[in-house]
Formats: sequence, C-alpha cells, structure tokens
Amino acid sequence: MALTKKPVRGMKDILPREMELRQYVLSEIRRTYKEFGFTEIETPVVEHIENLQSKQGGDNEKLIFKVMKRGGELERAIASGNPDEFCDSGLRYDLTLPLSRFYSQNQAQLPTPFKALQIGPVFRADRPQKGRFREFVQCDIDVFGDGSNLAEIELILAISTLLNRIGFGEKYNFKIVINDREILRGMQAYAGFPAEDFEKVCISLDKADKIGNDGVKAELLELGYAEPVIDKYQALLTGIGTQSSDIRSLGDTLSGVMPTSITENLAGIVDAVSEVESVNVNVEFDPTLVRGMGYYTGPIFEIRAEGFAGSVGGGGRYDKMVGRFTGQDTPAVGFSIGFERIITIMLDADEQVPGAGNKTAFLLEKTLDAGKTAAALNEAMALRSAGATILVEQMIKNKKHQKEQLIAEGYEDIREFYQNPIGR
Amino acid sequence: MALTKKPVRGMKDILPREMELRQYVLSEIRRTYKEFGFTEIETPVVEHIENLQSKQGGDNEKLIFKVMKRGGELERAIASGNPDEFCDSGLRYDLTLPLSRFYSQNQAQLPTPFKALQIGPVFRADRPQKGRFREFVQCDIDVFGDGSNLAEIELILAISTLLNRIGFGEKYNFKIVINDREILRGMQAYAGFPAEDFEKVCISLDKADKIGNDGVKAELLELGYAEPVIDKYQALLTGIGTQSSDIRSLGDTLSGVMPTSITENLAGIVDAVSEVESVNVNVEFDPTLVRGMGYYTGPIFEIRAEGFAGSVGGGGRYDKMVGRFTGQDTPAVGFSIGFERIITIMLDADEQVPGAGNKTAFLLEKTLDAGKTAAALNEAMALRSAGATILVEQMIKNKKHQKEQLIAEGYEDIREFYQNPIGR
Repeated sequence: MALTKKPVRGMKDILPREMELRQYVLSEIRRTYKEFGFTEIETPVVEHIENLQSKQGGDNEKLIFKVMKRGGELERAIASGNPDEFCDSGLRYDLTLPLSRFYSQNQAQLPTPFKALQIGPVFRADRPQKGRFREFVQCDIDVFGDGSNLAEIELILAISTLLNRIGFGEKYNFKIVINDREILRGMQAYAGFPAEDFEKVCISLDKADKIGNDGVKAELLELGYAEPVIDKYQALLTGIGTQSSDIRSLGDTLSGVMPTSITENLAGIVDAVSEVESVNVNVEFDPTLVRGMGYYTGPIFEIRAEGFAGSVGGGGRYDKMVGRFTGQDTPAVGFSIGFERIITIMLDADEQVPGAGNKTAFLLEKTLDAGKTAAALNEAMALRSAGATILVEQMIKNKKHQKEQLIAEGYEDIREFYQNPIGR
Repeated sequence: MALTKKPVRGMKDILPREMELRQYVLSEIRRTYKEFGFTEIETPVVEHIENLQSKQGGDNEKLIFKVMKRGGELERAIASGNPDEFCDSGLRYDLTLPLSRFYSQNQAQLPTPFKALQIGPVFRADRPQKGRFREFVQCDIDVFGDGSNLAEIELILAISTLLNRIGFGEKYNFKIVINDREILRGMQAYAGFPAEDFEKVCISLDKADKIGNDGVKAELLELGYAEPVIDKYQALLTGIGTQSSDIRSLGDTLSGVMPTSITENLAGIVDAVSEVESVNVNVEFDPTLVRGMGYYTGPIFEIRAEGFAGSVGGGGRYDKMVGRFTGQDTPAVGFSIGFERIITIMLDADEQVPGAGNKTAFLLEKTLDAGKTAAALNEAMALRSAGATILVEQMIKNKKHQKEQLIAEGYEDIREFYQNPIGR
C-alpha cells in the first residue's frame, strides 16, 4: 500500500523559504532575550494528563491530543472499559503550564529571580483554518520570584526591543496595551457585579471587540444582571484615556473597593517604560483588556500591530500557578510572543532575511576525474571556511534548467568544472 | 490535588547550563551545514500511524507513542472494540520517514538535488536508562535526487567540518567508518548464504562487537547455516585493511557475484574525501559495519569517537523509501548526527561555550524612585544595544547571597543602584 504523503490533518510541512525566516526571527529572539539575562530551558512535549487537565488551561483543555498508555497498562485500561483511562499523558497546549512544573521541580538549582526563555512546539486539536495549525511554535519569556513591577517593566522592554529589531516598530507601529486583572475585579465590584461571577462577567466583557458595547450589555442583561449595574460599569469606561494619569484617576474612583497600590503599580510600569529613550516603547492603558486565561492574577498585556486584527502576543502575571505544584505561591509573570502570527505577517509582506550572504554553486561535470574533483572540493572547502555557502553538485544534462533553478534559489554565482575545458 | 512536578517518565527537563551548550552546538550545526548548501525544513512531530507502521522503522515501530483519535471518531473506534483503531497518528520515532514523506509531498517546489537539514525532537517509548531518553533531538542532513557518490562525499565533508568545529577532531579523534549494504550482500552471496536471508544474517553479523566472531559463528550455526559457509564469510574479513585499495581488492574477490562498480563507488568516496586538505577527515573502510535499519540500499557510515563505545552518528543511502510514497524511487542519502550523545560527552567533559560574552548584573534598591530607576534602565538598554547581557533585578535583603548566586551564574560584574549613595 502506498504511504500517505500529506502531513496529518491541521499540521504542516515547513519549506526552506519559510524556515529561513523562522530561523532568522528565532535567532533575533534568542539574541535579544539573552541581552536581558533570560536563559533558555526546555520541557518535554509530552506532559502528564492530570497536569494538562488541571483547569489551568481554560478552553485549551478541550483540545488535548492524548497519548495512549502502552503494554500492560493499556491492556488493563481497556479491560476497565473506561476511555478516560486509556491515556496517561498528552501533548502540551502551551508552554506556561510545563514551565510552572519545571520551576517547581528544579527550583533548587535555579537562581532567584529566575528569568526563563522557552521556545517549542505546542499542540491543539482545534478546527483547522487558514493560518491556524494544530502544531505551532510558542516563544515565552517568564520571570519567577519577582513580585515587583520591575519584572513587567523588563518584559516590556525586552519585547519592545525584539519587535523593533524585526521591523514591527517601523512597519506596523506595534503597541502594548496593558491592564490588570485586579482593576477588572475592582471595576466589577464598583459597578455592583457579584465577586463570584468575576470570570463569567469577564467572558462577556471580552466580546466588546466583536459585538460592541450594546452587544455586551444585551448579553449581560440576558445573563440576569441588573441594567443599572451594567450601565455603571460601561460609564466607568467612557472617556478613560491611555496614560498613566488615567490609571491613577481610575484608582481614585475605585478607592472604595480596591487599594490604590494596584493602580499605582500599573501606572509605575507605564511611567518607567515611557522614560526609556533608547528603544521605541509604546504602552497604552486599556481598561477593556481582559485576556482569556483564568490563571492571571495581576497586570496583563497584549501586543497589537497596526492593520492587523487580534494580537501578536500577550501575557500577564500568574502568581498562583507554581503553588498548584508546590503548595507555596511564587510570583510569576510571562509574555508569549505570537510567533506564528509574526511569521505569517512577515511572509505575507515578502520580508527578506537580512544578510542572506554570498552563495555560489559549483557544477561538476559527471566525468570529472579524481584529481579535478579533489581540486574543486578543496576550493569549495576553502571558501566555506571563510563563511561562504558553496553548493557542490553534479552537472545534469539539462544544464540550462539546472542553472535557472539555482538562480531561483539565490545562487547568482554559478561555476562550472569540466574535465577538459578547451573547446567548451 | 497537587499537580505532578516531575517530567513524564523517561523524559527530561533541560536546565540553562545544558541548554546553552545545546544551543551552541545547534548554531554550529546550522552555520556549518548552511555553508554546504543545506536548507532547513521542518515536519510535524505527529505523523500518520500507517506511515509510522510501514516497516521502514525496524524495531522503532514497537516503540511508538500513539495519539488517540478524538470526538466522534474515537467513540466509533471504541464501539468497534478494536484497540488498533483507537489511534490515528503517533509521535515520530525518527526524522527520516517524515522527511521522505515531506520530499514526496513537496517535491515540485524543491530544487533537484535537494539538500535538507532537519532538526527536531523524536520519541521512542524505550525502557528509560542512563543517558537515554524517550524524547530526544535528532539533527539530520539528507540529499535527495543525487545518485552519484558526490552526495556521500559532501555529507562526509560537512559532518567532518562540523565535528572539527565542536572539538571532536582534536579531543576525540573522531573517525567515520564506511561500508556498503551491497558489499555485505555480495560477501554473503560469495560465502554461500541464501540471498533471501540477507537481513537475518546481518542481524547476527552485527553482534560481532558484543559477542565476538566465535559468538557470531555459534549463533549462525544455531540458525542452521553450514559451518563452511560461515567460515568462508569470516575468512573473507580476515586481514582486510581500511583503505580504498582494500575496498578495491575485496571487489576483485567478489567480482563473480557482484559488479566491481559497487566497490569502485565506495573506494571513490574514500579517495575523494582523503584528498581534501583544509579539513581533518578520517574515513576508514570497515566490512563488518552493518547499520540496523533495513531501508539502507548502498553506502552506510558511522561516526566513532575515541574512548567512547558505540557511535556518535551514522547514516547511509536509502534509494527506495521515497518510492514507498510516490511509486517512483528517488536517490536519497542521509546522515544523522548523534546530537544527544555529543551533548552528553561535552557535558561530562565540562565543556564551556566559547564567547559566553560579558554579563553584568544591575541590582536596584527597592526604594529607588522613578527617575533613578529610569536612569538605570536607560543605561542597561544602551549596553544591551551594544550586545552585552545586562540582568536588571531588585536588590533583595540577603544581598550577599544574591551576589554569590549571580557570580555562580557568570555575572562577575555586579553594579548596585541606591536611592541615596552617600554613606553606603
């Protein structure tokens, strides 16, 4: 039987052109984050099923690729008749949960604070659609053990430096919008929503982009909330600006239900990054920003690029997740860049990788003898040791086609090696 | 319930020290192979189960991590009662099979010959043991569409250049041993083994390292082969040297059962790489080399490092695998470097990553005001944009411990920022 040529449903092969761009962006990510003192780590692609299903992953928990048990364990599970028992692990759907497990497990060998960079594939059995794949790469930076807003400040500076380096400053005028889960909580308390409905109300509020404020209001009414409560919440948002002074004045308004230290902390982030001169940092307060994941406990942020809907990255503080593993909470804040989104935008804009370098092809006539072959190889090796790309291949019969193909691959310099050069 | 801190059985977390070394070796791999005209590609971690179980993977097919079907498909499979139907895919156990699928699927968009570099995790549900993990990284280079031995020559030069760059020439005096599956076949025919038993006899021959020639003889006798046949085979190996001339004289001996073009092809590889002066290439003929995978069809090679049992990489020609996908055979030859083995050897030798660069830590007093914080951040950003690593963190109470930890992390230069410098 012939084998299957296509990749599995919803996953993709990556061809050289895209791969070159991906590797360029990854090398800029590694170089930039390293300058900020982040060190790279790695966790397995396969994670315990009980960790993946621990309610830290939100809707992603519905999208797990489950890995079957093996051998006797599988036989016993099948005999038990309970399909939930057939698997013991699954493919990770994000990097945050495995990183928290990693930190919990290896804390004694890591510095405090610990600044981690993690890059790797994650998997979600989502309905495949254009530009969204079931396997994709995430690139996260996280700081563990720093409860101060210096962690957020450094994250924002690192992200901004990176985005400028890969052209997202100049070309797409990126900005980072920022809010705080505690401020969302405070605003809901101020308006009169019950504290225990926090997540539920957030889900409705998060739809303002798509269904508008009227749509949100209709949905909240339908959920049974009183109109004055909803109106009071929406009025709170009206006319709020994007500056640190706006955060502080919102803090004053909410001072009856929330300590102003929360708004002061967030305003301090905006102030600090705004005073950095050497890099273009564009941070705006947005009290409507919600972020989906329930594990966030403090400041949250999202990157937007001009001309593109949705985000090109996001993150926030999640001070309670490590405690799920260790029993003791540890401050944690992370930022995940939208790597695949960024690559898609750059590919669509036909971005070229800078300094692709000099590439030369050596075409060796089939009948070249050992001595002449050795001479050609020695010449290729010498040029390579100076950093040049030298492709050595046999000359084929249809040399014209071969050369056209090589030029298309970026080999503008093509040299031919003949056994007997005279008369050619 | 507390979550599980350990990685799943047989897989591992990778800490910063190891990761730095891995990234260094990976960057040398990418740089070196690029100089030889290899372009990087990627295939999904998840592969069709029917491809993984197509008898191309040898014993690895017994070690597949199977991925369960989802939703209605899973329900129907469970209702069917046949556990073989519960999965539709699995985690790849090597990169060769997915690469052959990739080439078959994307051939029209790729040059001929196509020189591919693929780096990625593979998975085998092996019994965990020291230094062997169930998830590990492979780094393969492969050439498709070149049936000449120029493909093998270039692969050997590329591997040798890489091994020299990462210190395996100088320190471990690596060598590449080389043989040809057709020569093995010719030798067996010459001795009188039945052609249809080729793979079976190879499995016994491959044990010479472990059980010696007498052990191999005993095993072959037990399998029912006649003593004169076995003796004739073993006599053939006696006194054979490692040079290209030895390959040619073996070819003469076998000329009744095998065309000498096969030995000439292999000898030509040894000759060509030996004449390259600019890089230390050490290639030796070894007629006992078998290589486990049944898919090899021509020259096979293996890298050995002095002082270490087993191999640190290997490969060979597999001209029939693409045909399993497309119905049309395509010449293919590949080389997989033993990435994890190399990393283990380098870690055990406490190898340092060259040019780890200047690293400075800025410790910011907790009470630093906005202006002084901004000044410190601006200074950090300026140094970073010149390529330095600047770690900015809050000064903790136990400053002595903090500084010791930083020094251990390689931050020999530590600067302290106080709100009021006077009197400190």
